[in-house]
Amino acid sequence: MTKVAMLGAGSWGTALALVLADNQYDVCVWGHREELIRQINEQHENKDYLPGVKLPEKVCGTTDLQTALTDVKTIIVAVPTKAIREVLKKAIPFIKQKAIFVHVSKGIEPDTLLRISEMMEEEIPEDMREDIVVLSGPSHAEEVGLRHPTTVTVSAKKCLESAQAVQDMFMNQNFRVYTNPDIIGVEIGGALKNVIALAAGIADGLGYGDNAKAALITRGLAEIARLGTKMGGNPLTFSGLTGIGDLIVTCTSVHSRNWRAGNMLGKGFKLEEVLNEMGMVVEGVRTTKAAYQLAKKYHVNMPITEALHKVLFDGKKVETAVESLMARVKTHEMEDLVNTFENQMK
Amino acid sequence: MTKVAMLGAGSWGTALALVLADNQYDVCVWGHREELIRQINEQHENKDYLPGVKLPEKVCGTTDLQTALTDVKTIIVAVPTKAIREVLKKAIPFIKQKAIFVHVSKGIEPDTLLRISEMMEEEIPEDMREDIVVLSGPSHAEEVGLRHPTTVTVSAKKCLESAQAVQDMFMNQNFRVYTNPDIIGVEIGGALKNVIALAAGIADGLGYGDNAKAALITRGLAEIARLGTKMGGNPLTFSGLTGIGDLIVTCTSVHSRNWRAGNMLGKGFKLEEVLNEMGMVVEGVRTTKAAYQLAKKYHVNMPITEALHKVLFDGKKVETAVESLMARVKTHEMEDLVNTFENQMK
Repeated sequence: MTKVAMLGAGSWGTALALVLADNQYDVCVWGHREELIRQINEQHENKDYLPGVKLPEKVCGTTDLQTALTDVKTIIVAVPTKAIREVLKKAIPFIKQKAIFVHVSKGIEPDTLLRISEMMEEEIPEDMREDIVVLSGPSHAEEVGLRHPTTVTVSAKKCLESAQAVQDMFMNQNFRVYTNPDIIGVEIGGALKNVIALAAGIADGLGYGDNAKAALITRGLAEIARLGTKMGGNPLTFSGLTGIGDLIVTCTSVHSRNWRAGNMLGKGFKLEEVLNEMGMVVEGVRTTKAAYQLAKKYHVNMPITEALHKVLFDGKKVETAVESLMARVKTHEMEDLVNTFENQMK
Repeated sequence: MTKVAMLGAGSWGTALALVLADNQYDVCVWGHREELIRQINEQHENKDYLPGVKLPEKVCGTTDLQTALTDVKTIIVAVPTKAIREVLKKAIPFIKQKAIFVHVSKGIEPDTLLRISEMMEEEIPEDMREDIVVLSGPSHAEEVGLRHPTTVTVSAKKCLESAQAVQDMFMNQNFRVYTNPDIIGVEIGGALKNVIALAAGIADGLGYGDNAKAALITRGLAEIARLGTKMGGNPLTFSGLTGIGDLIVTCTSVHSRNWRAGNMLGKGFKLEEVLNEMGMVVEGVRTTKAAYQLAKKYHVNMPITEALHKVLFDGKKVETAVESLMARVKTHEMEDLVNTFENQMK
């Protein structure tokens, strides 16, 4: 069976559909905007989210979930974290056989504090799911659309074989796929990098320069690793593609919408203005709320997340927040790191 | 005593002189080019290496080593790795009292495979040195010259007190200084990041994009950590400012001359043409030679260093080298990392 369902017609879903089509799969992309789906079918382009990229014939679009979900054993969920439960609720009635569910989003649900694979477990009946797999890593959709070299990691909830099946589907010369058994670390690294990307964008928007940003990314990785290991992730995962790799690409690339949102905040725009202007979902804003709650729950020191939370939700001035981060009284570099390491060893 | 000798009038020496002058030290900058020194004294600017930055009155220049070295207890060595032994040999006769020697360069000596502090130990008589200290971290001179927020790390050969003394000298609101007891890790991270920066520049020059570069930086950090821990460094240091922090800034900033050199190689220029064009020393080229020798000596797998060595010294085509890196047969992400971790635990 070579048909695959892609739920979501945003930039990432469209780029991944192209990768699968290059690998000879028939990809049925589901989205709810008729005009956009017609564009995909008639002009073979998604002008709103991946402009300039000619999609292969094997990519087709539909606004009908039943059409998308008939005769598939792999269902890829490529919608923002916020929309995942709703889309799954609508999809379930049309799923007639066990499938592997792959999610390609990066977030944590505020309040429940669940990772995406955990949310999916709640929504998908057990007899319907072969396994749940996450695909994550340093991968801007725009570059995948241009078939530039990209490397990502897949990790499965239940068994390595599912991860390997997904690896086989996506792997080609331009798109390298690795497996990692640590699904907790992979999901946490992917989600939390968006928080640091917002902070890095703010520092850039304030005109702080590359030296300050490198320091921020370094300390950001340390706080992600501290939390992630407390939550059961493998410390090594945070040194890999879905940890430092994804963090770098999100904090330094003009393609990153979280960085762009932070950049606007740094330049003095209000959160509301930024969200209106972006037009796409900025995962980092919701994730900051969740990360702040997680830091409290697990008693982990996360100064960057806390400072950003104050900026986004308590109206603290960005200058004051960043300055207090820079001026933190600490003279021994290893202080932070030793704490992380001790957590890792527990 | 508030006089400090700064040996070297390049961009980094000049920027650090500005930091010390801001902290009320009298900094005597030694360089051998009369015109440049006259510029510093008369126009308070180093137009060749730090253009547009007005130097404080407390920075003065001299071409006379004796003038620079009289009545100082802190001597900062800010010349390229290649020139360190020669400059120290000339300086020694003029040093009349015990001093702390601070080096701010990033390299490894080919053939001897010594770190910079080890080269300095060979050159400076024991009764003349209070201690040897390294200052390193993510810090482009251009941004330090503009007083943008910057964080660096200092580490001493003999005792923490020397590191703290240097920390006190440099620390101010814009320039944050941390201490780290691991001088091996600090020096190795600083030196080897230039190798990865060359490779990242090549990838950019070839038009590979941010996804590929993030993967390269991630794998680059892993190979630096593998070697550094085998040489006796603390694995945690490579997750800190002088490890991943410096690596990020060097691989992603337009200010980085190693990245710029790599970028030209990626665009098809020959090594000779690149070195002529740059005008400044490209430490990464010499360090690649040293790192390649170190990988052999310590039996460490360093695929990026090896590929780059082939490009620089065996005339291998950049496209072929980068492609073979991307296409490496490996499907399990943790393979590399687990090896690093096992080394760390030994």
